[in-house]
Amino acid sequence: MTRNLHKMMLDELRDIYSAETQITKALPKMARKASSQELKSAFEHHLEETRGHIERLDKVFEMLDTNARARGKKCEAMEGLVSEAKEIMEEDLDADAMDAALVGAAQKVEHYEIAGYGTLCAWAKAMGHEDVAKTLAETLEEERAADEKLNKLSAKINQAAARKAHGEARAA
Amino acid sequence: MTRNLHKMMLDELRDIYSAETQITKALPKMARKASSQELKSAFEHHLEETRGHIERLDKVFEMLDTNARARGKKCEAMEGLVSEAKEIMEEDLDADAMDAALVGAAQKVEHYEIAGYGTLCAWAKAMGHEDVAKTLAETLEEERAADEKLNKLSAKINQAAARKAHGEARAA
Repeated sequence: MTRNLHKMMLDELRDIYSAETQITKALPKMARKASSQELKSAFEHHLEETRGHIERLDKVFEMLDTNARARGKKCEAMEGLVSEAKEIMEEDLDADAMDAALVGAAQKVEHYEIAGYGTLCAWAKAMGHEDVAKTLAETLEEERAADEKLNKLSAKINQAAARKAHGEARAA
Repeated sequence: MTRNLHKMMLDELRDIYSAETQITKALPKMARKASSQELKSAFEHHLEETRGHIERLDKVFEMLDTNARARGKKCEAMEGLVSEAKEIMEEDLDADAMDAALVGAAQKVEHYEIAGYGTLCAWAKAMGHEDVAKTLAETLEEERAADEKLNKLSAKINQAAARKAHGEARAA
């Protein structure tokens, strides 16, 4: 049987469902590990948003096909991203460098989702599922905004981490 | 020993070096699997660019620390992304849906690199490595342009794949 774009969209929705679920487990750990209060809050805020994204995905499955199941696929790419974030959290880093590294790991997660939801929106639109495209576009915008917020936060965090890196280099 | 931002930057450079190396192995397979001549060309063009990115990373390692080694780290996230692309290539899909799925997989790869090089540029700037930041920014721009090119290509590819999906739904 030839599988077409509709089936691929369901596969991709299951993939991103698994990714979002993995993120809800990683974000609380990242929030605990962060030292900057603003970064902690950003992670906690995005955890709430992520729970909303999962609810939207449940709705999208209902819109598309009542027999389709949201669960049952493990997103391997997100496993790799979360595993890299865990490695970072186990490093012996000063507080500012840890925050800078956590931002970097979080932005990789955001970009995975930006690419995934971008593809899903494009496919839904091409197939005329306007309601699905609109629902997924709301999440896509929140992922882009979260990435942008991390960009802004990182400017201050990187400066502090860089000052410490230079201090250590001078002391060596 | 407390490890600082300089050490994290070297780690991240090794991670992206591994990612780029993995991409040079995946792109020829994706180009062979693509049916659209434009998509084939886009993958082949990006393969050439990717080889250039590896050369730039070699240069950056020389700029930063002659004792630092580019190799020795495996990027787990890119392993997951490449594994997902392989799964897609093994699917029994019609030619247009395969092309649409290959574009989606490639954009996830691009976004991993956009996030990685974005972080590296920000860290290099914060630490005053202007030459390194400039070199990495050239690659970042090529990754963004590659993603944008795939966006444009996908409009046509998705339309063709969607027409076939609707045809199959009507015939079912």
